[in-house]
Amino acid sequence: MSTERRNLDGLVKPRSLVVIGASNDATRIGGRPLYLAREFGFEGNVCGVNPKYAEVLGFPCYPALASVPYTPELAIVALAAKDVLGALSSCVDKGVKAAVVFAGGFAETGTVEGRRLQEDIAELCRKTGLLVAGPNGIGLINVANKSYATFMSAVLDARPVLGGVAVVAQSGGACIAVHNSLHARSVGENYILNTGNEACVGFSEYVGYVAADPSTKVVAGYIEGLDGSDGFVEKMIELRERNLPTVLYKVGETPAGAEAAASHTARMAGSHGVFKAALRQLGAMRADDMEQLAELAYLAQFSHRTAGLKVGILTTSGAFAAILTDKFVGAGLSVPRLSDAAQAALRPHLPAIATVVNPVDITANVVNSPDGFEDALATMLRTDELDVVVFFSTANLIDGLTPQMVRAAGASSKLLCVLVTGQTRRVGDLEAAGIPVFRDTGRGASAVASMAHWNVQKETWKHWPRPVSPQPARRMSVAGVLDQARAGGRTSLDEKEGKEILARYGIPVPAEAAATHPDEAEQLAEDIGYPVVLKVLSPDIVHKSDVGGVKLSLANRAEVRQAYAQIMASVSARLPSADIQGVLVQQQAARGVELLVSCTVDPLFGPVLTVAAGGLQAELIADVAQRLLPISKEEAGELLAELKSYPLLTGYRGAPAANLDAVAELLASMSEMAVELKDDISEIEVNPVIVQPGAAMGGVLAVDCVVRLS
Amino acid sequence: MSTERRNLDGLVKPRSLVVIGASNDATRIGGRPLYLAREFGFEGNVCGVNPKYAEVLGFPCYPALASVPYTPELAIVALAAKDVLGALSSCVDKGVKAAVVFAGGFAETGTVEGRRLQEDIAELCRKTGLLVAGPNGIGLINVANKSYATFMSAVLDARPVLGGVAVVAQSGGACIAVHNSLHARSVGENYILNTGNEACVGFSEYVGYVAADPSTKVVAGYIEGLDGSDGFVEKMIELRERNLPTVLYKVGETPAGAEAAASHTARMAGSHGVFKAALRQLGAMRADDMEQLAELAYLAQFSHRTAGLKVGILTTSGAFAAILTDKFVGAGLSVPRLSDAAQAALRPHLPAIATVVNPVDITANVVNSPDGFEDALATMLRTDELDVVVFFSTANLIDGLTPQMVRAAGASSKLLCVLVTGQTRRVGDLEAAGIPVFRDTGRGASAVASMAHWNVQKETWKHWPRPVSPQPARRMSVAGVLDQARAGGRTSLDEKEGKEILARYGIPVPAEAAATHPDEAEQLAEDIGYPVVLKVLSPDIVHKSDVGGVKLSLANRAEVRQAYAQIMASVSARLPSADIQGVLVQQQAARGVELLVSCTVDPLFGPVLTVAAGGLQAELIADVAQRLLPISKEEAGELLAELKSYPLLTGYRGAPAANLDAVAELLASMSEMAVELKDDISEIEVNPVIVQPGAAMGGVLAVDCVVRLS
Repeated sequence: MSTERRNLDGLVKPRSLVVIGASNDATRIGGRPLYLAREFGFEGNVCGVNPKYAEVLGFPCYPALASVPYTPELAIVALAAKDVLGALSSCVDKGVKAAVVFAGGFAETGTVEGRRLQEDIAELCRKTGLLVAGPNGIGLINVANKSYATFMSAVLDARPVLGGVAVVAQSGGACIAVHNSLHARSVGENYILNTGNEACVGFSEYVGYVAADPSTKVVAGYIEGLDGSDGFVEKMIELRERNLPTVLYKVGETPAGAEAAASHTARMAGSHGVFKAALRQLGAMRADDMEQLAELAYLAQFSHRTAGLKVGILTTSGAFAAILTDKFVGAGLSVPRLSDAAQAALRPHLPAIATVVNPVDITANVVNSPDGFEDALATMLRTDELDVVVFFSTANLIDGLTPQMVRAAGASSKLLCVLVTGQTRRVGDLEAAGIPVFRDTGRGASAVASMAHWNVQKETWKHWPRPVSPQPARRMSVAGVLDQARAGGRTSLDEKEGKEILARYGIPVPAEAAATHPDEAEQLAEDIGYPVVLKVLSPDIVHKSDVGGVKLSLANRAEVRQAYAQIMASVSARLPSADIQGVLVQQQAARGVELLVSCTVDPLFGPVLTVAAGGLQAELIADVAQRLLPISKEEAGELLAELKSYPLLTGYRGAPAANLDAVAELLASMSEMAVELKDDISEIEVNPVIVQPGAAMGGVLAVDCVVRLS
Repeated sequence: MSTERRNLDGLVKPRSLVVIGASNDATRIGGRPLYLAREFGFEGNVCGVNPKYAEVLGFPCYPALASVPYTPELAIVALAAKDVLGALSSCVDKGVKAAVVFAGGFAETGTVEGRRLQEDIAELCRKTGLLVAGPNGIGLINVANKSYATFMSAVLDARPVLGGVAVVAQSGGACIAVHNSLHARSVGENYILNTGNEACVGFSEYVGYVAADPSTKVVAGYIEGLDGSDGFVEKMIELRERNLPTVLYKVGETPAGAEAAASHTARMAGSHGVFKAALRQLGAMRADDMEQLAELAYLAQFSHRTAGLKVGILTTSGAFAAILTDKFVGAGLSVPRLSDAAQAALRPHLPAIATVVNPVDITANVVNSPDGFEDALATMLRTDELDVVVFFSTANLIDGLTPQMVRAAGASSKLLCVLVTGQTRRVGDLEAAGIPVFRDTGRGASAVASMAHWNVQKETWKHWPRPVSPQPARRMSVAGVLDQARAGGRTSLDEKEGKEILARYGIPVPAEAAATHPDEAEQLAEDIGYPVVLKVLSPDIVHKSDVGGVKLSLANRAEVRQAYAQIMASVSARLPSADIQGVLVQQQAARGVELLVSCTVDPLFGPVLTVAAGGLQAELIADVAQRLLPISKEEAGELLAELKSYPLLTGYRGAPAANLDAVAELLASMSEMAVELKDDISEIEVNPVIVQPGAAMGGVLAVDCVVRLS
């Protein structure tokens, strides 16, 4: 794969087609593309290659590609795996620039032979510039161009309607499912692309291609696994900057699901937690299932309208006033009580029995006062107290009130969304006026909540990633530590080395020093001040406690001496071969709230910061927040606030508040360090960071750390 | 309301109708029931009452009910609130046994006048035996009987199809929404009932009525609030015993939603957590939104087929193999790897590229071997390794493989469920063969998971509640403590009294005794053994720590004496008016895992046990499990295992395991106590219960408690 910007027109927007391995049977993979070309009225030249026929399904057929009297732009290779490379070579010879390969039997089989066959294709593409879709794909559809380089039969049952949603899917079955869901939702598409095994063109390159087409209003993607080689992050940032809504559904939210996905495509699913965090920063919407992908793609078509977290609910049913409040509040939005002024503005328009606090329940009596309804709706769309308005009613009322909604929406740039029960007849009129309509109220509320969050996230992260200014002096200052460890053939740093690096990045570490003899340890303890901790110092030992290598709360010389002896005895008994370089004598941190802070390098997303509440219980509950790096101090503060345990830091139950500024500062420093050293260090885990409530200054200490080298 | 078993036939299955306040306008509430009677072909007598007309919408009309020449069975009162009582009185005079009241303006307004008007109706019903539906309801529909005592127009757009789902809803808007959702799903109904304000007949009484009808196969209910006065729990147990599937959706999952619901109907929503716990014990399915209510009602029609937690996934798409694994595992089911024997049984039926471990991916090549598909499906339906089989494919394949599925399902009693993308044409054939079909794969997977859990829960709780054997001697032994507190005009017990009661129920409490003088405290401490805790003893002080009333870790006589003085000084300074009766000298429990255990009396469900992980962090994370009482020791063990912090008790990270048996014993004892004393005690909170890991015997101690009297 390549991240250079290639022109995929030959693949995705061909002006002529040839099917290699053409068949007269319209249900076979060699026949269906020909059938579809006829059926959908593809306007360019179409022919087949098959020595058995002179004509296939009404198109001319030639014994070999070489004998085709012109150069087709796209070759559709409908041959078995073993014959694919030969066919592609003939494409190169003929000057054909692009090919779609349907056959399976490549890397997805997990066999050496399969992988080799796929690598041969990749190699040919690299050498010749041939563009290949697949192998193991159901092909590519360009709805406007009427090119159906696919053997997907679903398009015959659910004929694509030209529209603004571009579908890119890493699985053929998913591609069909997304198309079917969009079609059932009457959403128009411009591209329906299955990437297959991506021997040549990858998911992100297709996304870049469809995004560059002004007819694309929304990108809907299905992902099984990405490795970053085709520039996913950069592409997402590009789409965010163009304000092009992107909705992605990625399988692998459970380890079992990730494993099933891996066995399907030989792709690694990656961490779902990181993916979720990443999409927020990259300004994409995340779907939880295929149908939500379709619903969000539908709603995203209305993203020119503004939305945010403060929802106004207008309803003719008291039950739905409550139900929708549940749904929106449950999804992290607010249903704010309207101010007295806003209520006063609403009241005159509505029947006496209406409630106007928000939810605004206008009751089914609204039929008798459509003007009042229109004024009330316009008032809700106008007030700054609401970011988005959702109207629930039954089909007959929605139909009757459509003109009023159309007018009110026309006078506002705010999103007005209709949830309806029953079969309304005026969906088209509402949609044309910029009003999305959902008949599944649960899915509708969920989609509105996702889009509201997306709007806020997009704004929050619009400048991410900010450029990081390199600090050559600091880089130099840590190089020595890294070089020394590497020179010793080590893959990790010892605790003291790790903390040296932390300290260089301004991260507060306890006063500490190494001792190689009990006397020295005693003297250091006296200098540092009691209580102290003794920890074995060895590059070979990561989990020091497990081998009796840590002694806490040492209060005097005698205890230090005894601890030294105990550590040496225990560690050398349990790990006789470990290289023990002495002990670390360390200032013992006061008690406080414990955090675990780690930086890892994700294969797709690069450096990632993870903050977790410390302690066994938090571990069981997985109270964790994550961000792609870099992040600013302010962004670090927001990250912290995502932890469920966050109130422990803000002064819970009468306890003093922690110095949140210092915690955010530490996280921002970790970010700087992880980004700057991402090629040197694969993982830094600081555990615990102790945060002392009530500290005016400081009050944050990185007590222990493990650093693994790349 | 009454819990006696009344015959609601007059209301729900009337043989003749009169509309009081009849109108010639079919769109008005006085006209629509007449219009619907004609439209749906109601076969009994129908007439109107209105002095203005001699005929309404083709039916005879009389100036007053008295002048109707026969006694109609059901009166539909289409008058304003102020005229309702008069009309109902005329019903009583005429011998009409039942009436439906549409008008709003009663208790739901929250006004004194509205409540009084409603109470007048309730009183009339109690005195005369008149049955009233509503007020403030959209009415009652009996699909088989063709009686449409309603002004709901949705039935004209979505005409009910006779079937086995009975709808009972506490809101008119919700009633319409459920009907519309079921109709969109092609699910037949026999009853569509809106309970309105329930002045006379409540939700549970309607449920009991429809459940007694053998044509009812599923009950689908929407709830805003229940107070238990109509016997909800008993009715649910009755349905569970009849094996009649019940699906309930209750609003109020967030506090904001509960508040909105309360302002809609003046009903209190109750604790959603307790509701969730209760439904499992009561053997009902819980829906999360209106559409899920319809989906579960649909699926529940197939509940004669067995289902359980081990899911077999059969698919023609590798993507859906992974997606469905995610969904089922995420919902707490398992997708077990099939044994070698089971795989070997599958292998011969399937194409070479199929994967057979489960998920079983037969790929789209299945079209070429429908017999192999049938054998494979039959094998999966047969093996004990799977409890339920889900088949995903695209519409064209589903249509082609329908005969095979029908035969395989016919040979099995296990649930086979089809998820499909695209417009299949053979849903009816599949359903007739007992195979439910979902076109929304996300909702389908979720529904299958809910039904699988429901099957397991129903079995687990089938004997609940087991009869509790009264223990008069024990009851007597605690009566003294309770009486003494009541005699003193107190609403709570002091810690010592509370623990006395705990001890009577066999709950381990620390060695402790009260002292009224420092000398006495010292002597008690010597007897009990150090370390001890001193706690102020006062019926007026619930939060002892907050007023300096607790001193921990006292290690000798001197510390005890000093603590005594400090407590007295601090408490009398902060709460000068408190009745201080001395201190409690208490054995200090060793450190351990802390639990909070409480018993409360829910207005709807009676005694409820709540167990929560202790500590500040767990409080923030709300690591809680709940059960209706009574529960057995075994059931208590299962409750405990629901806590996310449970691994802390089973030996986490090398720590010794706790004595789980003793914890379960304590919880079962709490259950006995709460049930036996439910009329005396409104709340018992034991906080903390300290569980000491590694204890072979005992190792559980109820360290502090608060007991509130009813």
